[in-house]
Amino acid sequence: MKKIGIIGGIGWPSTMEYYRLICEASQKHHQNKTFSGPSPMPEIAIESLNMHFTVNNRGTSELGSWCTWDSYFQLACRRLEQSGAELILLASVTPHARLEVISEGINVPVISVYEAIGLHCKTRGIDNLLVLGTMPTMTSQAFKNGVAKFGVNTIYPPTEELKTRVTEVIERLYQNQIEVSSVAIDSIVRASLPSDQLDTTVTCLACTELPTGFRDASDKSEFEYKGIQYINSSVLHAISAFDACIS
Amino acid sequence: MKKIGIIGGIGWPSTMEYYRLICEASQKHHQNKTFSGPSPMPEIAIESLNMHFTVNNRGTSELGSWCTWDSYFQLACRRLEQSGAELILLASVTPHARLEVISEGINVPVISVYEAIGLHCKTRGIDNLLVLGTMPTMTSQAFKNGVAKFGVNTIYPPTEELKTRVTEVIERLYQNQIEVSSVAIDSIVRASLPSDQLDTTVTCLACTELPTGFRDASDKSEFEYKGIQYINSSVLHAISAFDACIS
Repeated sequence: MKKIGIIGGIGWPSTMEYYRLICEASQKHHQNKTFSGPSPMPEIAIESLNMHFTVNNRGTSELGSWCTWDSYFQLACRRLEQSGAELILLASVTPHARLEVISEGINVPVISVYEAIGLHCKTRGIDNLLVLGTMPTMTSQAFKNGVAKFGVNTIYPPTEELKTRVTEVIERLYQNQIEVSSVAIDSIVRASLPSDQLDTTVTCLACTELPTGFRDASDKSEFEYKGIQYINSSVLHAISAFDACIS
Repeated sequence: MKKIGIIGGIGWPSTMEYYRLICEASQKHHQNKTFSGPSPMPEIAIESLNMHFTVNNRGTSELGSWCTWDSYFQLACRRLEQSGAELILLASVTPHARLEVISEGINVPVISVYEAIGLHCKTRGIDNLLVLGTMPTMTSQAFKNGVAKFGVNTIYPPTEELKTRVTEVIERLYQNQIEVSSVAIDSIVRASLPSDQLDTTVTCLACTELPTGFRDASDKSEFEYKGIQYINSSVLHAISAFDACIS
Protein backbone atom coordinates (compact mmCIF):
# COMPACT_ATOMS: atom_id res chain seq x y z
CA MET A 1 0.00 0.00 0.00
CA LYS A 2 1.17 3.50 -0.79
CA LYS A 3 1.85 5.88 2.08
CA ILE A 4 -0.93 8.47 2.47
CA GLY A 5 -0.27 12.09 3.47
CA ILE A 6 -3.05 14.15 5.05
CA ILE A 7 -3.14 17.92 5.55
CA GLY A 8 -5.28 18.17 8.68
CA GLY A 9 -6.38 20.48 11.47
CA ILE A 10 -8.83 22.38 9.22
CA GLY A 11 -10.50 21.55 11.58
CA TRP A 12 -9.27 18.75 13.79
CA PRO A 13 -12.57 16.78 14.08
CA SER A 14 -12.58 16.49 10.29
CA THR A 15 -9.02 15.09 10.40
CA MET A 16 -10.13 12.39 12.85
CA GLU A 17 -13.00 11.53 10.51
CA TYR A 18 -10.73 11.10 7.46
CA TYR A 19 -8.18 9.07 9.44
CA ARG A 20 -10.93 6.80 10.82
CA LEU A 21 -12.54 6.33 7.38
CA ILE A 22 -9.20 5.35 5.80
CA CYS A 23 -8.26 2.94 8.61
CA GLU A 24 -11.71 1.33 8.51
CA ALA A 25 -11.50 1.06 4.71
CA SER A 26 -8.22 -0.82 5.13
CA GLN A 27 -9.74 -3.15 7.74
CA LYS A 28 -12.69 -3.84 5.42
CA HIS A 29 -10.39 -4.38 2.43
CA HIS A 30 -8.42 -7.02 4.37
CA GLN A 31 -11.27 -8.65 6.28
CA ASN A 32 -11.50 -11.91 4.38
CA LYS A 33 -7.79 -12.29 3.72
CA THR A 34 -5.44 -14.49 5.66
CA PHE A 35 -2.56 -12.93 7.58
CA SER A 36 -1.03 -13.14 11.02
CA GLY A 37 -1.56 -10.37 13.58
CA PRO A 38 -3.55 -7.16 13.18
CA SER A 39 -5.03 -6.05 9.86
CA PRO A 40 -2.49 -4.40 7.50
CA MET A 41 -2.77 -0.60 7.42
CA PRO A 42 -1.28 1.94 5.05
CA GLU A 43 1.30 4.18 6.66
CA ILE A 44 -0.24 7.63 7.07
CA ALA A 45 1.55 10.93 7.70
CA ILE A 46 -0.59 13.77 8.99
CA GLU A 47 0.39 17.43 9.13
CA SER A 48 -2.21 19.02 11.39
CA LEU A 49 -2.11 22.80 10.89
CA ASN A 50 -3.21 25.62 13.17
CA MET A 51 -6.64 26.71 11.91
CA HIS A 52 -6.39 29.91 13.96
CA PHE A 53 -3.44 30.89 11.75
CA THR A 54 -5.07 29.85 8.46
CA VAL A 55 -8.35 31.68 9.13
CA ASN A 56 -6.51 34.85 10.15
CA ASN A 57 -4.31 34.73 7.06
CA ARG A 58 -6.97 34.24 4.43
CA GLY A 59 -6.48 36.52 1.43
CA THR A 60 -8.89 38.74 -0.40
CA SER A 61 -9.37 39.39 -4.12
CA GLU A 62 -6.23 41.57 -3.99
CA LEU A 63 -3.21 40.27 -5.86
CA GLY A 64 -0.65 38.60 -3.56
CA SER A 65 -2.96 38.64 -0.54
CA TRP A 66 -3.05 34.83 -0.30
CA CYS A 67 0.74 34.53 -0.19
CA THR A 68 1.13 33.70 3.53
CA TRP A 69 -1.83 31.31 3.51
CA ASP A 70 -0.63 29.53 0.34
CA SER A 71 2.91 28.99 1.54
CA TYR A 72 1.69 27.63 4.90
CA PHE A 73 -0.15 24.87 3.00
CA GLN A 74 2.60 24.42 0.37
CA LEU A 75 5.22 23.82 3.06
CA ALA A 76 2.97 21.28 4.77
CA CYS A 77 2.56 19.40 1.46
CA ARG A 78 6.31 19.44 1.02
CA ARG A 79 6.86 18.03 4.52
CA LEU A 80 4.41 15.21 3.75
CA GLU A 81 6.24 14.46 0.51
CA GLN A 82 9.57 14.47 2.35
CA SER A 83 8.22 12.06 4.93
CA GLY A 84 7.49 9.62 2.11
CA ALA A 85 3.81 10.26 1.31
CA GLU A 86 3.01 8.87 -2.15
CA LEU A 87 -0.33 10.64 -2.39
CA ILE A 88 -1.70 13.62 -0.50
CA LEU A 89 -5.15 14.85 0.43
CA LEU A 90 -6.57 17.87 2.26
CA ALA A 91 -8.98 16.71 4.99
CA SER A 92 -11.34 19.62 4.35
CA VAL A 93 -13.37 20.90 1.41
CA THR A 94 -12.89 24.64 1.98
CA PRO A 95 -9.12 24.97 1.19
CA HIS A 96 -9.64 23.02 -2.05
CA ALA A 97 -10.54 26.36 -3.65
CA ARG A 98 -6.75 26.98 -3.74
CA LEU A 99 -5.66 23.39 -4.41
CA GLU A 100 -3.84 24.23 -7.64
CA VAL A 101 -1.60 26.75 -5.87
CA ILE A 102 -1.16 24.61 -2.74
CA SER A 103 0.06 21.61 -4.73
CA GLU A 104 2.49 23.54 -6.96
CA GLY A 105 5.83 21.76 -7.14
CA ILE A 106 4.53 18.65 -5.36
CA ASN A 107 5.63 15.52 -7.21
CA VAL A 108 3.05 13.08 -5.88
CA PRO A 109 -0.69 13.05 -6.74
CA VAL A 110 -2.86 15.36 -4.66
CA ILE A 111 -6.30 13.73 -4.53
CA SER A 112 -8.98 16.38 -5.03
CA VAL A 113 -12.36 16.20 -3.30
CA TYR A 114 -13.90 17.75 -6.44
CA GLU A 115 -12.67 14.80 -8.51
CA ALA A 116 -13.92 12.29 -5.94
CA ILE A 117 -17.37 13.93 -6.01
CA GLY A 118 -17.37 14.39 -9.79
CA LEU A 119 -16.38 10.78 -10.45
CA HIS A 120 -19.05 9.47 -8.08
CA CYS A 121 -21.70 11.62 -9.80
CA LYS A 122 -20.61 10.44 -13.25
CA THR A 123 -20.73 6.79 -12.17
CA ARG A 124 -24.15 7.21 -10.55
CA GLY A 125 -25.60 9.33 -13.37
CA ILE A 126 -26.04 12.43 -11.20
CA ASP A 127 -26.23 15.61 -13.32
CA ASN A 128 -27.32 18.25 -10.79
CA LEU A 129 -25.74 18.84 -7.41
CA LEU A 130 -26.95 21.22 -4.71
CA VAL A 131 -23.82 21.94 -2.66
CA LEU A 132 -24.00 22.80 1.05
CA GLY A 133 -20.80 23.73 2.86
CA THR A 134 -18.94 26.65 4.40
CA MET A 135 -19.44 30.14 2.93
CA PRO A 136 -16.20 29.98 0.84
CA THR A 137 -17.33 26.60 -0.57
CA MET A 138 -20.84 27.88 -1.43
CA THR A 139 -19.39 30.80 -3.39
CA SER A 140 -16.54 28.88 -5.02
CA GLN A 141 -15.92 28.89 -8.74
CA ALA A 142 -13.27 26.19 -8.19
CA PHE A 143 -15.90 23.70 -6.96
CA LYS A 144 -18.12 24.37 -10.02
CA ASN A 145 -15.18 23.97 -12.40
CA GLY A 146 -13.88 20.91 -10.56
CA VAL A 147 -17.06 18.88 -10.95
CA ALA A 148 -18.04 20.37 -14.34
CA LYS A 149 -15.26 18.22 -15.88
CA PHE A 150 -17.46 15.23 -15.01
CA GLY A 151 -20.56 16.78 -16.57
CA VAL A 152 -22.00 17.86 -13.22
CA ASN A 153 -23.93 21.11 -12.82
CA THR A 154 -23.43 22.77 -9.40
CA ILE A 155 -26.20 24.71 -7.66
CA TYR A 156 -25.63 26.72 -4.46
CA PRO A 157 -28.41 27.90 -2.10
CA PRO A 158 -29.67 30.90 -4.08
CA THR A 159 -29.90 33.56 -1.35
CA GLU A 160 -27.55 34.96 1.31
CA GLU A 161 -30.13 34.05 3.95
CA LEU A 162 -30.19 30.36 2.90
CA LYS A 163 -26.38 30.21 2.77
CA THR A 164 -26.21 31.74 6.26
CA ARG A 165 -28.65 29.11 7.55
CA VAL A 166 -26.28 26.38 6.27
CA THR A 167 -23.32 27.94 8.10
CA GLU A 168 -25.39 28.20 11.28
CA VAL A 169 -26.15 24.46 11.13
CA ILE A 170 -22.42 23.75 10.62
CA GLU A 171 -21.58 25.98 13.61
CA ARG A 172 -24.07 24.12 15.84
CA LEU A 173 -22.81 20.71 14.67
CA TYR A 174 -19.22 21.77 15.35
CA GLN A 175 -20.33 22.30 18.94
CA ASN A 176 -21.92 18.85 18.87
CA GLN A 177 -25.50 20.19 18.94
CA ILE A 178 -26.97 17.53 16.69
CA GLU A 179 -30.70 17.98 17.45
CA VAL A 180 -32.97 19.01 14.57
CA SER A 181 -30.01 19.52 12.18
CA SER A 182 -31.42 17.04 9.66
CA VAL A 183 -34.76 18.88 9.76
CA ALA A 184 -32.99 22.23 9.28
CA ILE A 185 -30.97 20.89 6.33
CA ASP A 186 -34.08 19.35 4.75
CA SER A 187 -35.83 22.71 4.95
CA ILE A 188 -32.84 24.53 3.36
CA VAL A 189 -32.78 22.02 0.49
CA ARG A 190 -36.52 22.45 -0.20
CA ALA A 191 -36.20 26.26 -0.10
CA SER A 192 -33.20 26.15 -2.47
CA LEU A 193 -34.78 24.10 -5.24
CA PRO A 194 -37.97 24.43 -7.29
CA SER A 195 -40.18 21.44 -6.38
CA ASP A 196 -39.84 19.89 -9.85
CA GLN A 197 -36.05 19.74 -9.37
CA LEU A 198 -36.11 17.94 -5.99
CA ASP A 199 -36.19 14.56 -7.74
CA THR A 200 -33.46 15.32 -10.26
CA THR A 201 -30.98 17.04 -7.92
CA VAL A 202 -28.75 15.34 -5.35
CA THR A 203 -27.58 17.33 -2.31
CA CYS A 204 -23.84 17.20 -1.59
CA LEU A 205 -22.91 17.62 2.09
CA ALA A 206 -19.57 19.26 1.29
CA CYS A 207 -18.37 19.85 4.82
CA THR A 208 -17.40 17.14 7.33
CA GLU A 209 -19.78 18.41 10.00
CA LEU A 210 -22.98 18.20 7.95
CA PRO A 211 -23.36 14.38 7.72
CA THR A 212 -23.10 14.18 11.53
CA GLY A 213 -26.54 15.85 11.58
CA PHE A 214 -28.10 12.67 10.16
CA ARG A 215 -28.34 9.47 12.19
CA ASP A 216 -25.93 6.75 10.93
CA ALA A 217 -24.92 8.80 7.86
CA SER A 218 -21.28 9.41 8.72
CA ASP A 219 -20.07 6.17 7.10
CA LYS A 220 -22.22 6.27 3.97
CA SER A 221 -21.15 7.78 0.66
CA GLU A 222 -24.81 8.22 -0.28
CA PHE A 223 -28.08 8.09 1.68
CA GLU A 224 -31.68 9.21 1.52
CA TYR A 225 -33.63 11.37 3.98
CA LYS A 226 -37.31 12.34 3.53
CA GLY A 227 -37.17 11.51 -0.16
CA ILE A 228 -34.06 13.59 -0.86
CA GLN A 229 -30.80 11.95 -1.94
CA TYR A 230 -27.58 13.08 -0.20
CA ILE A 231 -23.90 12.40 -0.83
CA ASN A 232 -21.21 12.65 1.86
CA SER A 233 -18.06 14.28 0.47
CA SER A 234 -15.75 13.12 3.31
CA VAL A 235 -16.57 9.45 2.72
CA LEU A 236 -16.14 9.79 -1.08
CA HIS A 237 -12.84 11.64 -0.64
CA ALA A 238 -11.37 9.29 1.99
CA ILE A 239 -12.39 6.20 0.01
CA SER A 240 -10.90 7.60 -3.21
CA ALA A 241 -7.63 8.15 -1.34
CA PHE A 242 -7.69 4.58 -0.04
CA ASP A 243 -8.43 3.27 -3.55
CA ALA A 244 -5.43 5.22 -4.88
CA CYS A 245 -3.33 3.84 -2.01
CA ILE A 246 -3.99 0.21 -3.00
CA SER A 247 -3.92 0.76 -6.78
CA MET B 1 3.20 26.58 21.05
CA LYS B 2 5.76 23.93 20.17
CA LYS B 3 5.00 21.54 17.35
CA ILE B 4 4.05 18.07 18.65
CA GLY B 5 5.07 14.85 16.90
CA ILE B 6 3.07 11.68 17.46
CA ILE B 7 4.06 8.12 16.54
CA GLY B 8 0.66 6.57 15.89
CA GLY B 9 -1.12 3.61 14.40
CA ILE B 10 -0.30 1.30 17.34
CA GLY B 11 -3.25 1.04 17.04
CA TRP B 12 -5.14 3.70 15.15
CA PRO B 13 -8.04 4.21 17.63
CA SER B 14 -5.46 5.11 20.27
CA THR B 15 -3.94 7.70 17.90
CA MET B 16 -7.35 9.34 17.47
CA GLU B 17 -7.72 9.44 21.25
CA TYR B 18 -4.35 11.17 21.78
CA TYR B 19 -4.99 13.66 18.96
CA ARG B 20 -8.46 14.49 20.35
CA LEU B 21 -7.14 14.88 23.92
CA ILE B 22 -4.39 17.29 22.79
CA CYS B 23 -6.74 19.37 20.60
CA GLU B 24 -9.32 19.57 23.40
CA ALA B 25 -6.58 20.53 25.88
CA SER B 26 -5.63 23.40 23.57
CA GLN B 27 -9.26 24.52 23.27
CA LYS B 28 -9.61 24.43 27.06
CA HIS B 29 -6.33 26.29 27.54
CA HIS B 30 -7.52 29.11 25.26
CA GLN B 31 -11.18 29.21 26.25
CA ASN B 32 -11.19 32.43 28.27
CA LYS B 33 -8.64 34.25 26.14
CA THR B 34 -9.45 36.82 23.50
CA PHE B 35 -8.51 36.16 19.87
CA SER B 36 -10.16 36.34 16.48
CA GLY B 37 -11.27 33.20 14.64
CA PRO B 38 -10.95 29.58 15.80
CA SER B 39 -9.05 28.58 18.94
CA PRO B 40 -5.24 28.41 18.46
CA MET B 41 -3.95 24.86 18.09
CA PRO B 42 -0.43 23.48 18.21
CA GLU B 43 0.78 22.12 14.90
CA ILE B 44 0.87 18.34 15.15
CA ALA B 45 2.71 15.89 12.91
CA ILE B 46 1.58 12.27 13.08
CA GLU B 47 3.43 9.28 11.66
CA SER B 48 0.88 6.49 11.71
CA LEU B 49 2.68 3.16 11.35
CA ASN B 50 1.46 -0.21 10.11
CA MET B 51 0.73 -2.28 13.23
CA HIS B 52 0.60 -5.44 11.12
CA PHE B 53 4.29 -4.86 10.38
CA THR B 54 5.29 -3.98 13.95
CA VAL B 55 3.53 -6.99 15.52
CA ASN B 56 5.09 -9.37 12.98
CA ASN B 57 8.54 -7.92 13.54
CA ARG B 58 8.66 -8.03 17.33
CA GLY B 59 11.93 -9.42 18.62
CA THR B 60 12.64 -12.05 21.22
CA SER B 61 15.23 -12.21 23.99
CA GLU B 62 17.82 -13.06 21.31
CA LEU B 63 20.48 -10.43 20.65
CA GLY B 64 19.74 -8.34 17.53
CA SER B 65 16.24 -9.74 17.09
CA TRP B 66 14.58 -6.33 17.63
CA CYS B 67 16.64 -4.65 14.92
CA THR B 68 13.92 -4.37 12.23
CA TRP B 69 11.29 -3.27 14.76
CA ASP B 70 13.60 -0.70 16.37
CA SER B 71 14.64 0.92 13.12
CA TYR B 72 11.02 1.15 11.91
CA PHE B 73 10.25 3.30 14.98
CA GLN B 74 13.57 5.17 14.88
CA LEU B 75 13.00 6.26 11.29
CA ALA B 76 9.50 7.46 12.14
CA CYS B 77 10.93 9.56 15.03
CA ARG B 78 13.47 11.00 12.63
CA ARG B 79 10.78 11.92 10.09
CA LEU B 80 8.82 13.70 12.84
CA GLU B 81 11.94 15.60 13.87
CA GLN B 82 12.61 16.53 10.23
CA SER B 83 9.07 17.81 9.84
CA GLY B 84 9.73 20.22 12.70
CA ALA B 85 8.36 18.40 15.75
CA GLU B 86 9.83 19.94 18.90
CA LEU B 87 8.67 17.13 21.15
CA ILE B 88 7.63 13.58 20.35
CA LEU B 89 5.38 11.02 21.97
CA LEU B 90 4.35 7.44 21.23
CA ALA B 91 0.55 7.14 21.29
CA SER B 92 0.67 3.71 22.91
CA VAL B 93 2.04 2.26 26.16
CA THR B 94 3.32 -1.07 24.80
CA PRO B 95 6.23 0.16 22.60
CA HIS B 96 7.52 2.28 25.50
CA ALA B 97 9.36 -0.83 26.66
CA ARG B 98 11.93 0.04 23.93
CA LEU B 99 11.69 3.83 24.22
CA GLU B 100 15.41 4.26 24.97
CA VAL B 101 16.40 2.51 21.75
CA ILE B 102 13.63 4.12 19.66
CA SER B 103 14.67 7.64 20.65
CA GLU B 104 18.41 7.15 20.10
CA GLY B 105 19.88 10.05 18.16
CA ILE B 106 16.68 12.12 18.38
CA ASN B 107 17.49 15.69 19.36
CA VAL B 108 14.09 16.73 20.71
CA PRO B 109 12.48 15.53 23.97
CA VAL B 110 10.56 12.25 23.72
CA ILE B 111 7.81 12.43 26.35
CA SER B 112 7.54 9.09 28.15
CA VAL B 113 4.25 7.71 29.42
CA TYR B 114 6.17 6.26 32.38
CA GLU B 115 7.27 9.75 33.41
CA ALA B 116 3.76 11.14 32.98
CA ILE B 117 2.38 8.37 35.21
CA GLY B 118 5.26 8.60 37.71
CA LEU B 119 4.97 12.36 38.06
CA HIS B 120 1.21 12.16 38.57
CA CYS B 121 1.66 9.50 41.27
CA LYS B 122 4.34 11.54 43.04
CA THR B 123 2.14 14.67 43.00
CA ARG B 124 -0.90 12.73 44.29
CA GLY B 125 1.05 10.73 46.88
CA ILE B 126 0.39 7.38 45.19
CA ASP B 127 2.98 4.76 46.23
CA ASN B 128 1.53 1.52 44.86
CA LEU B 129 0.26 1.00 41.34
CA LEU B 130 -1.51 -2.07 39.97
CA VAL B 131 -0.85 -1.91 36.22
CA LEU B 132 -3.31 -3.38 33.69
CA GLY B 133 -2.35 -3.33 30.01
CA THR B 134 -1.25 -5.55 27.16
CA MET B 135 0.81 -8.69 27.93
CA PRO B 136 4.15 -6.97 27.06
CA THR B 137 3.23 -4.10 29.40
CA MET B 138 2.24 -6.42 32.27
CA THR B 139 5.58 -8.22 32.08
CA SER B 140 7.71 -5.14 31.48
CA GLN B 141 10.75 -4.29 33.54
CA ALA B 142 10.92 -0.94 31.71
CA PHE B 143 7.57 0.15 33.18
CA LYS B 144 8.68 -0.78 36.72
CA ASN B 145 11.97 1.09 36.31
CA GLY B 146 10.30 4.06 34.66
CA VAL B 147 7.92 4.78 37.52
CA ALA B 148 10.32 3.63 40.27
CA LYS B 149 12.27 6.88 39.70
CA PHE B 150 9.24 8.64 41.18
CA GLY B 151 9.09 6.34 44.20
CA VAL B 152 6.25 4.26 42.77
CA ASN B 153 6.03 0.51 43.33
CA THR B 154 4.49 -1.40 40.37
CA ILE B 155 2.32 -4.48 40.85
CA TYR B 156 1.14 -6.65 37.94
CA PRO B 157 -1.76 -9.14 38.11
CA PRO B 158 0.02 -12.02 39.88
CA THR B 159 -1.07 -15.01 37.74
CA GLU B 160 -1.06 -15.83 34.02
CA GLU B 161 -4.82 -16.41 34.24
CA LEU B 162 -5.47 -12.89 35.60
CA LYS B 163 -3.19 -11.31 33.00
CA THR B 164 -5.01 -13.22 30.25
CA ARG B 165 -8.35 -11.96 31.57
CA VAL B 166 -7.05 -8.37 31.18
CA THR B 167 -6.02 -8.98 27.56
CA GLU B 168 -9.43 -10.54 26.85
CA VAL B 169 -11.16 -7.38 28.12
CA ILE B 170 -8.86 -5.26 25.90
CA GLU B 171 -9.67 -7.46 22.90
CA ARG B 172 -13.42 -7.09 23.49
CA LEU B 173 -13.11 -3.31 23.95
CA TYR B 174 -11.08 -3.06 20.75
CA GLN B 175 -14.12 -4.56 19.02
CA ASN B 176 -16.29 -1.98 20.78
CA GLN B 177 -17.95 -4.55 23.07
CA ILE B 178 -18.21 -2.31 26.10
CA GLU B 179 -20.79 -4.22 28.16
CA VAL B 180 -19.68 -5.51 31.58
CA SER B 181 -16.05 -4.48 31.00
CA SER B 182 -15.99 -2.32 34.12
CA VAL B 183 -17.35 -5.25 36.14
CA ALA B 184 -14.71 -7.57 34.64
CA ILE B 185 -11.91 -5.11 35.42
CA ASP B 186 -13.19 -4.60 38.98
CA SER B 187 -13.12 -8.35 39.52
CA ILE B 188 -9.54 -8.64 38.16
CA VAL B 189 -8.38 -5.83 40.48
CA ARG B 190 -9.95 -7.51 43.56
CA ALA B 191 -8.41 -10.87 42.61
CA SER B 192 -4.99 -9.28 42.09
CA LEU B 193 -4.68 -7.53 45.45
CA PRO B 194 -4.98 -8.68 49.07
CA SER B 195 -8.06 -6.93 50.53
CA ASP B 196 -5.95 -4.82 52.90
CA GLN B 197 -4.11 -3.34 49.87
CA LEU B 198 -7.23 -2.27 47.93
CA ASP B 199 -7.28 1.07 49.76
CA THR B 200 -3.58 1.83 49.37
CA THR B 201 -3.16 0.79 45.73
CA VAL B 202 -4.29 2.73 42.69
CA THR B 203 -5.05 0.86 39.44
CA CYS B 204 -3.40 2.23 36.30
CA LEU B 205 -5.31 1.58 33.06
CA ALA B 206 -2.15 1.46 30.95
CA CYS B 207 -3.76 0.79 27.59
CA THR B 208 -5.97 3.21 25.65
CA GLU B 209 -8.83 0.73 25.32
CA LEU B 210 -9.33 0.05 29.04
CA PRO B 211 -10.81 3.43 30.11
CA THR B 212 -13.46 3.08 27.38
CA GLY B 213 -14.91 0.28 29.52
CA PHE B 214 -16.01 2.83 32.14
CA ARG B 215 -18.78 5.32 31.47
CA ASP B 216 -17.49 8.91 31.04
CA ALA B 217 -13.93 7.94 32.06
CA SER B 218 -12.15 8.59 28.77
CA ASP B 219 -11.47 12.27 29.53
CA LYS B 220 -10.47 11.89 33.18
CA SER B 221 -6.91 11.46 34.42
CA GLU B 222 -8.24 9.85 37.61
CA PHE B 223 -11.63 8.44 38.62
CA GLU B 224 -13.22 6.09 41.14
CA TYR B 225 -15.35 2.99 40.50
CA LYS B 226 -16.84 0.82 43.27
CA GLY B 227 -14.43 2.25 45.82
CA ILE B 228 -11.30 1.60 43.72
CA GLN B 229 -9.21 4.49 42.39
CA TYR B 230 -8.12 4.38 38.72
CA ILE B 231 -5.75 6.46 36.62
CA ASN B 232 -5.99 6.79 32.83
CA SER B 233 -2.53 6.71 31.25
CA SER B 234 -3.62 8.17 27.86
CA VAL B 235 -5.04 11.30 29.47
CA LEU B 236 -1.95 11.79 31.67
CA HIS B 237 0.38 11.26 28.71
CA ALA B 238 -1.50 13.51 26.26
CA ILE B 239 -1.84 16.28 28.86
CA SER B 240 1.85 16.09 29.77
CA ALA B 241 2.67 16.51 26.05
CA PHE B 242 0.38 19.53 25.80
CA ASP B 243 1.95 21.02 28.96
CA ALA B 244 5.40 20.58 27.39
CA CYS B 245 4.10 22.15 24.16
CA ILE B 246 3.05 25.37 25.92
CA SER B 247 5.99 25.53 28.36
